[in-house]
Amino acid sequence: MRVLLTGAGGFIGASVVRRMTDEGIDLHALGRRDVPGTAFHRCDLLTDDPAPILATIRPTHLVHLAWNDDRATLWNGVDNLSWVAATLRLVLAFRQAGGTRAVIAGSSAEYDWTGDAPLDERTSPLDPATGYGRAKRALFDLLTGTPALGLSIGWARIFFAFGPDDKPDRLLSQVIDGVAAGRTVACSAGMQVRPFIHVDDVAGALVALLRSPVEGAVNVALAETMSVRDLALCAGAAAGNPNHIAFGMQPLQPGEPPLLRAATARLTDEVGFVPRFTIATGVAATVLTRLENNL
Amino acid sequence: MRVLLTGAGGFIGASVVRRMTDEGIDLHALGRRDVPGTAFHRCDLLTDDPAPILATIRPTHLVHLAWNDDRATLWNGVDNLSWVAATLRLVLAFRQAGGTRAVIAGSSAEYDWTGDAPLDERTSPLDPATGYGRAKRALFDLLTGTPALGLSIGWARIFFAFGPDDKPDRLLSQVIDGVAAGRTVACSAGMQVRPFIHVDDVAGALVALLRSPVEGAVNVALAETMSVRDLALCAGAAAGNPNHIAFGMQPLQPGEPPLLRAATARLTDEVGFVPRFTIATGVAATVLTRLENNL
Repeated sequence: MRVLLTGAGGFIGASVVRRMTDEGIDLHALGRRDVPGTAFHRCDLLTDDPAPILATIRPTHLVHLAWNDDRATLWNGVDNLSWVAATLRLVLAFRQAGGTRAVIAGSSAEYDWTGDAPLDERTSPLDPATGYGRAKRALFDLLTGTPALGLSIGWARIFFAFGPDDKPDRLLSQVIDGVAAGRTVACSAGMQVRPFIHVDDVAGALVALLRSPVEGAVNVALAETMSVRDLALCAGAAAGNPNHIAFGMQPLQPGEPPLLRAATARLTDEVGFVPRFTIATGVAATVLTRLENNL
Repeated sequence: MRVLLTGAGGFIGASVVRRMTDEGIDLHALGRRDVPGTAFHRCDLLTDDPAPILATIRPTHLVHLAWNDDRATLWNGVDNLSWVAATLRLVLAFRQAGGTRAVIAGSSAEYDWTGDAPLDERTSPLDPATGYGRAKRALFDLLTGTPALGLSIGWARIFFAFGPDDKPDRLLSQVIDGVAAGRTVACSAGMQVRPFIHVDDVAGALVALLRSPVEGAVNVALAETMSVRDLALCAGAAAGNPNHIAFGMQPLQPGEPPLLRAATARLTDEVGFVPRFTIATGVAATVLTRLENNL
């Protein structure tokens, strides 16, 4: 198996690179910025035709994580349309180069978030509230609904990933960095409940999905959930002081549902993935590593 | 208004060119094959980046009709994915070049065809049975659901167009050519009922929609319907002999619903379009012109 990875420099991608390197996988990365530890191929997916590069690499497997990483325009920006076009072009070039199996990053944002049943790949309605969710749903529909493609595609609906290398403006990073610096960190009331998952488990699930023959949508999530408040308190305690968190000082983002849960039977029973972390142990590991990295 | 037109060499596009030329519109055509009577710009939308050309043309308006015209792969082929990517790229380049108003060809195939109520832009479910319908629905969802684009978009859901310059393998062409040559023409039983529309009325509706400020999906169809059998009989009679048609000699295509109707209030009331033909007068005109062209 020769794997082509996009988004290798991103938060989840970096963890996938470590995982695949540990497993001795023949790994090629494609993107704008050099990725150490991989056979790297420079290509801006938004502007360059990837077909000639793929024809020389001839990957058998594809893991496509690359997307717009500007959070200001992520949810409803025009770049989502560019990434739909870029993704279609990439997958067609992968097929043309003889590829057979692809795992593509979908999102929990493809689902209708207004209910409170566990979001299920086979029965829950897809009714995204954002442009990002609509873009991912459109790709899911087009790529998994075109048998003539002749590709085996696992569509990874990734839920709420956290980890030590997340951006400084994300909640957990703010709590860890803030508490360590003795600053008080302003949060929302934090009553919203989410199926958080450690980024190394996301990476492990993606690699397991890639190695499996499972096709169609698969939630990449834990069955376990935690409130944002408890997540922050866990992190604050592990960082040394939960009392430096001021809940209710930040407004809730519009459209944030109180409860999201994920059905995980496909990932655990069909793919056979066993997570390494619970949310609590994942948070503890995240705090430890981030504090070490900050030293 | 400076209009950029794609698909100008196609069945509907050729009629749009005539209509716009008659109206004295500043018309630029973009495509693989030269289009007489227009300012023509060579560009293969599937492989070439249209942005540099659009930056020099600087169209204010866009009419995008181009799509895969190989009927063997139209309904479920991989090319539908390439055309989604090409369409997104074209619309983004149009926006980048300063364009403001676009009319894009959608399709009646975006709708769920299993009911029998008139298909309505605002209330009928979109549940396409084909890859072509899914591709058009995905584009509708992405392009009309991204306010950040800042474009005014009329999404033309075109129904069953017929006309004198249609391909020889289409029903009406077969009947006209066959009867004129004294051949017996094999048809299905022909009991399926459709809202057929003359291609010149499709073109007129597209131009009226382009000139209007109406946004979102608009059915391009007549409220009137006719069975395939009656359509063929009309054409046979106008061509000189309805007795040369052998109904029931061809199987019905799988998935062909017995009845399709279109809601037309948006096109008639909001756009203000008045069709020139009924189905019967449109067929008569089609027969006359095709017989003249064949001489």
